[in-house]
Amino acid sequence: MKRRLLLVSNSTLHGSGYLDHCQQQITDFFGKDVRRVLFVPYALHDRDAYTKTARNKFKTLGYEVDSIHEAADPVEAVRKAEGIFIGGGNTFRLLKSLYDSKVVTEIRRRVMEDGVPYMGSSAGTNVATISISTTNDMPIVYPLTFAAIGLVPFNINPHYLDHDSSSRHMGETREQRITQYHEEADTPSVLGLREGCMLLVEGDKATLLGSTKARLFTRGKPTVEYDPGSDLSFLLTDAH
Amino acid sequence: MKRRLLLVSNSTLHGSGYLDHCQQQITDFFGKDVRRVLFVPYALHDRDAYTKTARNKFKTLGYEVDSIHEAADPVEAVRKAEGIFIGGGNTFRLLKSLYDSKVVTEIRRRVMEDGVPYMGSSAGTNVATISISTTNDMPIVYPLTFAAIGLVPFNINPHYLDHDSSSRHMGETREQRITQYHEEADTPSVLGLREGCMLLVEGDKATLLGSTKARLFTRGKPTVEYDPGSDLSFLLTDAH
Ligand SMILES: [Ca+2]
Ligand SMILES: [Ca+2]
Repeated sequence: MKRRLLLVSNSTLHGSGYLDHCQQQITDFFGKDVRRVLFVPYALHDRDAYTKTARNKFKTLGYEVDSIHEAADPVEAVRKAEGIFIGGGNTFRLLKSLYDSKVVTEIRRRVMEDGVPYMGSSAGTNVATISISTTNDMPIVYPLTFAAIGLVPFNINPHYLDHDSSSRHMGETREQRITQYHEEADTPSVLGLREGCMLLVEGDKATLLGSTKARLFTRGKPTVEYDPGSDLSFLLTDAH
Repeated sequence: MKRRLLLVSNSTLHGSGYLDHCQQQITDFFGKDVRRVLFVPYALHDRDAYTKTARNKFKTLGYEVDSIHEAADPVEAVRKAEGIFIGGGNTFRLLKSLYDSKVVTEIRRRVMEDGVPYMGSSAGTNVATISISTTNDMPIVYPLTFAAIGLVPFNINPHYLDHDSSSRHMGETREQRITQYHEEADTPSVLGLREGCMLLVEGDKATLLGSTKARLFTRGKPTVEYDPGSDLSFLLTDAH
């Protein structure tokens, strides 16, 4: 399995600029062989503005950005991509656009068979997993399915948030929401990535990177905390 | 139009018990003619426990509770209901179960044509509107559509939450999420009901009740704040 993934919790960390907190991991990940990255701006409404933001940032890291929305044929753009980056925004809008553009299967094939490196941030991390069932976003559009690209056999909750015990708000906590997911039958594990951390997958090896811890929810088991540097390769087996 | 609705933002207000903060409005709403209320516990996994909670609370208010999940024929239960209460939980699970039980059309008919009073709380308020597209919940199951019972021609965001400027969390604010909804074409107004308030609809008259303000989001227009007591009947015209 050639799969290489960098799945980032959040695009912007409080007090710093767009992708600043993970720029070292981005250059380590795409390396020197990749020159051009195919950007997928489908999660935001203004695709031109979004592409400009991504393009400017990646330029400072030494990469050119082609946006899939500027390509005459999106599937062909995926077919030729040296690297792929799907940015954050609304996960429902993103997944629906991926299916509308018919690129889901081709992205999966390029990543899993050809080893094209895939970076996702926030919603772009959600769609890399089994399904978008653990997104935090509002269902503003209706996708044909919640099944996603499926580059890993579990779910991720990006922007994972601990309960603030001083809050008077009575909406469900993030932990309660994920627990409700696991009340449903046959639901996979959910890796809660706090803002500041990310998951690096290289083949069958998965490692937590960044500055914050991740929380793993497994159906019927107690939750477990993992520090940056932890080996999470066990999540890549089908049992999860 | 005989429609009578009590659409509550939240079941429990911080520091008080289940439905305590709206119990006066509940007894005013169901009045003395209704003796038995049909409860719909589909939004939570443990329907028996949920029914017990609702039954105990409604007993203190002078009403008997029949739960739809205890009925041999859910549609028949709706057909005979004197009043309906759909409780909160996960909105996706609730809507899917409503469709699976084939009660959506019958609930709409009973409320709109027969004048059966409908109370919703949180997820039960979401499903009373045009669609569940402005729920805060996780998409833990896939419903056949996001279209909901449609008792009013607009959307509601329950548990509406103002941005906490001291927060370091970078996930979208509630306002940003609703703004993203309105980036989509032909999207209806969204009434953000803060915890503590509720909307009373009697025929073509709508009034904000409770202790907190509501925030109205209309596509292409500035947001507007409404105090408790405000007449929101204009939301019931088709233009919204
Ligand atoms: Ca998002
Ligand atoms: Ca809920």
